[in-house]
Amino acid sequence: MTQKKPITVAITGAAGNIAYSLIFRICSGELFGNDQPFNLSLIDIEPALPALEGLVMELQDSNFRLINKTICTTDPFEGFRDADYAILLGSYPRNKNQTRKDLLGKNVSIFKIQGKALSFVAKKTVKVVVVGNPVNTNALVTAKYAENIPKENIVALTRLDMNRSISQLSRKLNKNVSNIKNVFTWGNHSASQFVDLSNGYLLEGSKKTPLTELVEKEWTYGEFQTTNQTRGKAVILKRGRSSAGSAANAVIDLLKSWIYGTETYVSMGVISDNNPYNVPENLIFSFPCTCKNGSWKISKDLKPNDFCKKMIKKNVDELVSERNIAFGLLQD
Amino acid sequence: MTQKKPITVAITGAAGNIAYSLIFRICSGELFGNDQPFNLSLIDIEPALPALEGLVMELQDSNFRLINKTICTTDPFEGFRDADYAILLGSYPRNKNQTRKDLLGKNVSIFKIQGKALSFVAKKTVKVVVVGNPVNTNALVTAKYAENIPKENIVALTRLDMNRSISQLSRKLNKNVSNIKNVFTWGNHSASQFVDLSNGYLLEGSKKTPLTELVEKEWTYGEFQTTNQTRGKAVILKRGRSSAGSAANAVIDLLKSWIYGTETYVSMGVISDNNPYNVPENLIFSFPCTCKNGSWKISKDLKPNDFCKKMIKKNVDELVSERNIAFGLLQD
Repeated sequence: MTQKKPITVAITGAAGNIAYSLIFRICSGELFGNDQPFNLSLIDIEPALPALEGLVMELQDSNFRLINKTICTTDPFEGFRDADYAILLGSYPRNKNQTRKDLLGKNVSIFKIQGKALSFVAKKTVKVVVVGNPVNTNALVTAKYAENIPKENIVALTRLDMNRSISQLSRKLNKNVSNIKNVFTWGNHSASQFVDLSNGYLLEGSKKTPLTELVEKEWTYGEFQTTNQTRGKAVILKRGRSSAGSAANAVIDLLKSWIYGTETYVSMGVISDNNPYNVPENLIFSFPCTCKNGSWKISKDLKPNDFCKKMIKKNVDELVSERNIAFGLLQD
Repeated sequence: MTQKKPITVAITGAAGNIAYSLIFRICSGELFGNDQPFNLSLIDIEPALPALEGLVMELQDSNFRLINKTICTTDPFEGFRDADYAILLGSYPRNKNQTRKDLLGKNVSIFKIQGKALSFVAKKTVKVVVVGNPVNTNALVTAKYAENIPKENIVALTRLDMNRSISQLSRKLNKNVSNIKNVFTWGNHSASQFVDLSNGYLLEGSKKTPLTELVEKEWTYGEFQTTNQTRGKAVILKRGRSSAGSAANAVIDLLKSWIYGTETYVSMGVISDNNPYNVPENLIFSFPCTCKNGSWKISKDLKPNDFCKKMIKKNVDELVSERNIAFGLLQD
């Protein structure tokens, strides 16, 4: 058997909790396949380096045969070298007394450098998943500075929002998650996000029942939305820690969809282009996408109702405002 | 396609860190297969129930289609009901000012109840993996009270010790972990453990080179042993937290070996029977085992050298002493 050539997977915030949940699953071969060796490039800030070395010791002690080489670094220009995949988990965390502008300011400078580094040293075909919040604008800043990388290659994680909505519907309908299709979120990964189930259906055998026939309108536009918006906080209240395992899982789900394709809609935060939903160009926006041969495509044949259009508009406004602040700061 | 009947997987200490690393990997289908649905039975102490509920929320939000039903409970008589697999992660942690007797005392009472519960409510064919320390004696106590369960079904995790030794050899020889075969640990999962590489070899293509030809004797009986013994502490020093991810990984490795079989020796802490190594009966002792059709077998054709025999004796003495303390406490 000829061995496949190793691919390179770079991860920022690699000493953090999401990374700890993500990396062991990647190393098990679950994402890239049991015959695909890889180089791991683990990136984090200086104070996190000891923890990162501890993680590397644990990866060694897990006897993962697919790991070809591992490096730890604080320098994205070293860490992203020849990357086939870059998973950007790290970001500047929100503090209590911080304005949105302060938060954006801290993150803009991180993702500007990372965008430049990706542009200079990563493969031109690199697939980039941005996870650190505010994720849509962080991804947009990355795309802006990653001049040599097609903007299509940079995707913001909104899959956890979609997964949470399917999780809710699964409990509401008492059906397996795998029976619920074509539910997704529009817009920003923030409290403004809008979950759209108007195209969704319950699949049982070959029978498709529209979700709108199965759940009440009041619930759809009320509790369903607010539960999704506040799910992250609800997990923190119970666990005392943020939802690392399910976030890592959403990264894997997103990449599986992107790499291996999907037959139904999935949520992906992608660069907006000419689209029938009045989302202006040059935003990273969560759209219903389908994937094939390693590329995503925005589904353009949906007919959002008036309420949905209003929510899309709200998300556009919010993201334009974030973009204006972020790009303004970049000129300072 | 006919769907497989769900199996039941019970996990104690389910709100802890090893569980958090383990459960997502199990739920991904990695261990029991992509077509094997399961019930999750999550067991922990009362104060951990909120965290456990948070974990369940995250599992829901991960859209794991293989999960059939999940329960959270503090009661092993509920938690182990109909279990096909029981993974006992929870134990009473070691405190600084605690004697070995105190520590054993706390744990003996936990594993006595769990043994009884397994005996009463689990499937007779249940496979039990004990992870909580002191793991050998905890497993022995479990076996003693699980009267209806064959003692062969209860195994103590010593796989992490084996994995760590292969990890060391991999770095020493600059070879992939998968090239290193038949290295294992004897005895107790404690500082007395002895890593035996005298039967090990480096496999390259079809060429087998004995490890004894590749590493120095001094290293084999010196640094190699001490590094393995202190590896857990070394990880804690770097990470500031104990090695949860690699411990969870070792549980998966052990169960894969046990369920799917193995062609070379693996470390398993199993009930001692008539064996040529002078290990008396009625101890849970790490032996070199091979597995086939869901059963393990101690490899009985090895020829330990004098030093190894001395180390086996040391481990026997330590475990007999632990057993005497533990069983003495059980009579109180």
